[in-house]
Amino acid sequence: MIGVFDSGIGGLTVVKALKRHLPDYDILYFGDTARTPYGTKSPETVIQYAVEDAEFLLEKGAQMLVVACNTASSTATDTLKERFDVPILEVISPAVNMAVSDSKRTRVGIIGTRATVNSRVYEDKIKAIRPEMKVYSQPCPLLVPLVEEGWLKKGETRKIIKKYLHPLKVKQIDVLILGCTHYPLLKDIIQAKIGKRVKVIDSSEALSVSVIDFLHNNSDVESRLKKDGTCQFYVSDITEQFEQIAGTILKGTVKLEHVRL
Amino acid sequence: MIGVFDSGIGGLTVVKALKRHLPDYDILYFGDTARTPYGTKSPETVIQYAVEDAEFLLEKGAQMLVVACNTASSTATDTLKERFDVPILEVISPAVNMAVSDSKRTRVGIIGTRATVNSRVYEDKIKAIRPEMKVYSQPCPLLVPLVEEGWLKKGETRKIIKKYLHPLKVKQIDVLILGCTHYPLLKDIIQAKIGKRVKVIDSSEALSVSVIDFLHNNSDVESRLKKDGTCQFYVSDITEQFEQIAGTILKGTVKLEHVRL
Repeated sequence: MIGVFDSGIGGLTVVKALKRHLPDYDILYFGDTARTPYGTKSPETVIQYAVEDAEFLLEKGAQMLVVACNTASSTATDTLKERFDVPILEVISPAVNMAVSDSKRTRVGIIGTRATVNSRVYEDKIKAIRPEMKVYSQPCPLLVPLVEEGWLKKGETRKIIKKYLHPLKVKQIDVLILGCTHYPLLKDIIQAKIGKRVKVIDSSEALSVSVIDFLHNNSDVESRLKKDGTCQFYVSDITEQFEQIAGTILKGTVKLEHVRL
Repeated sequence: MIGVFDSGIGGLTVVKALKRHLPDYDILYFGDTARTPYGTKSPETVIQYAVEDAEFLLEKGAQMLVVACNTASSTATDTLKERFDVPILEVISPAVNMAVSDSKRTRVGIIGTRATVNSRVYEDKIKAIRPEMKVYSQPCPLLVPLVEEGWLKKGETRKIIKKYLHPLKVKQIDVLILGCTHYPLLKDIIQAKIGKRVKVIDSSEALSVSVIDFLHNNSDVESRLKKDGTCQFYVSDITEQFEQIAGTILKGTVKLEHVRL
């Protein structure tokens, strides 16, 4: 089974993309809703949580791990790879590769949580591939609560997005990475505010393409994965609000199972 | 020592009020910043966290507990009182008593997190004292992230507050309870938007008055409390952002000590 984890339910955008491209593969999802969000917390705390999330999925039978959370990907991937002997794919590198190949002006913008932006992981990975790239980052900490409130079309949300994107717009970026799994739900507004000439990269979508590539190139792992087309969703806390957003993301009723870590 | 706990650093508004009224009393503060916020989580999870927070403060030597968090007060107070044999004061009742005595039109508004509003605890307590009171509640889940971002004077914050308060305004309330320890930082905007004829009750301030009353009436407890005027602040996670807000609330540098629960 493919194990996917996130700080909450934002990572369901990754599950959605995976199901579209790989409908047969069994997926185990864990959302750490009892301790969400990760994006406002320290690297030490995020690493501890990510290790516990991974342990849970491996105990449940996951044979490979997908870190759907940008904050966990940016701060905890190295620790996870040292600690666990299974393939681990994270959400940063696929978006970085796409951005580097798509940017003609070599001016890339990143939006994400404060923890993701402070980690400078996008910037470092982009510059490691093409040192001449200019990278501009903007933390957008209010977007997660706005999405979790379901304020997807409200005027206030549009204004806040416009305010956040303004510094990137004046830098004349031609590619913008959505560095948080909640942001695809705001993609239309983000595209409108940053301008139609900027290519907006959805990191969930980029990640699912990279999972396909990985399976294609690693038939030993691929052949062991179950393919009954099932999806199981575990969360560390359940509220009506979480169930609603899960339903909005996956367009239907989602049965969340409560587990205590 | 007086032990005060909160889901994060919002409860420092209570410490501030306590220090103003009772400068000599030693205070131990615990903010559960590694799992903040509580207001979006389920009652079961909030109760578990509140019990752990209380245990921590009692181990550190607290002789009485003040639950500074509205969400924890509304969902966990009964469990805490069953579990622990020390005086426990919570933040709801003092504000309720003040509202009941101040409202002439018997129309009271409450704003708080989704968890606090869903618990209906303010409404139940108000109606237990004066059944004829009309109580109108409005969850304002975006205000905590806005405060934690330091967006205290921004236009977007004003607009969101106006939107939240509109349904209470049309109900012609004459008293409004700030049912969350973060909200006193937005008191000026809230007062402006709800109108100057509405009395705005700061639950932190009401709670500190009730602590004074309690100590006055319980000299056995009062005489055992240390009075060296010290304050110790423990948090389960430290970030620069948390330190900044703590500084904003207490107007100065606050030394936060990191502990793992």
